[in-house]
Amino acid sequence: MSYAISKTISADMATAEARVRDELQKEGFGVLTEIDMQATLKKKLDADIRPYKILGACNPPFALKSLQAEDYIGLMLPCNVLLQQRDNGVEVSAVDPVASMMAVKNAALEATAGEVRDKLKRVIVAL
Amino acid sequence: MSYAISKTISADMATAEARVRDELQKEGFGVLTEIDMQATLKKKLDADIRPYKILGACNPPFALKSLQAEDYIGLMLPCNVLLQQRDNGVEVSAVDPVASMMAVKNAALEATAGEVRDKLKRVIVAL
Repeated sequence: MSYAISKTISADMATAEARVRDELQKEGFGVLTEIDMQATLKKKLDADIRPYKILGACNPPFALKSLQAEDYIGLMLPCNVLLQQRDNGVEVSAVDPVASMMAVKNAALEATAGEVRDKLKRVIVAL
Repeated sequence: MSYAISKTISADMATAEARVRDELQKEGFGVLTEIDMQATLKKKLDADIRPYKILGACNPPFALKSLQAEDYIGLMLPCNVLLQQRDNGVEVSAVDPVASMMAVKNAALEATAGEVRDKLKRVIVAL
């Protein structure tokens, strides 16, 4: 089972990120966190990696539903969307919450995770 | 398989968070993100939940190792540590990265996830 829903688009990182944020918003997701992993690893370890950015996306009504179904679900939130530089553009990947929540055995949560997966798929397809 | 490593401590949220940050630092984790889920859901939905905070912890050398083993691992980073108010104190939970990365079939990554789990266990035990 793959845990990533991906698409590579012809754009630079900044343009790709703006498009991702725009499409996330259309599906009701806000971006609550962001990590520039390239900058973090340069600063902490003087290591060089490709441009690599993690956005933490959250759809509040679905976050609330998942919290009501499962006390510890905050350990799996928010849903990450990853942007990484490739030779032919920027690869954008959304986590598949059904796959990432495999370790959580909870039928009520599974239905919610499936709905969030459908939303994230639409975000990636629309890019 | 449980995906949470938990302990409840007698403290308020702010004191618990300070202790968590201190113990994370001893194991080489910085806190890269934080989400006050109680405040977020109040603001977005006018919903009331208990105090519930998610810290995103990252140990740079281990993040680099996991990135080198698996291109899409950013979808599972950082490692979340959750604080939630309970009647008898604050329950602190760290994600078990071995469980949360079940969907990622990658032997090289599994060893790294196991080492990170050991570090997070030491953080929780030390609280």
